[in-house]
Amino acid sequence: AGDAAAGKGKAAVCAGCHGANGVSMVPMYPNLAGQKAMYLENALKAYKAGQRTGGTAAMMAPQAAGLSDKDIADLAAYFSSL
Amino acid sequence: AGDAAAGKGKAAVCAGCHGANGVSMVPMYPNLAGQKAMYLENALKAYKAGQRTGGTAAMMAPQAAGLSDKDIADLAAYFSSL
Repeated sequence: AGDAAAGKGKAAVCAGCHGANGVSMVPMYPNLAGQKAMYLENALKAYKAGQRTGGTAAMMAPQAAGLSDKDIADLAAYFSSL
Repeated sequence: AGDAAAGKGKAAVCAGCHGANGVSMVPMYPNLAGQKAMYLENALKAYKAGQRTGGTAAMMAPQAAGLSDKDIADLAAYFSSL
């Protein structure tokens, strides 16, 4: 499992769309707070692998592209802990 | 916007994976309760349009395939209201 504390340190860039506390202010952007960690990991990996296209995927894919598996696990642990 | 009451009537099939109250019991399946309605609509439309592949998309695509835009709006309204 990921390290939520490490994830918090990596989550600053996410806050712009998903909200500082993981609850987004924009209807198109999903809330992440309290979401299942494994689902968050799978979603980030899907964006990274190009398995999600259309809509906001065009914004998420570049964000995910730069993340390592550890980054992904840590971010997922962090947001699911909110 | 969708009709949450109508959405509740259409949500029975979703409960198996996403939980009767929109909080799933399975780590791979996302919680839907309180999620942004527009995001839920966009996600369902992406599954329906084949814009999401890999992982559990293979399970969601057939579920979404049979939904009309109204069904999607109603389901999104319902789950976001939980």
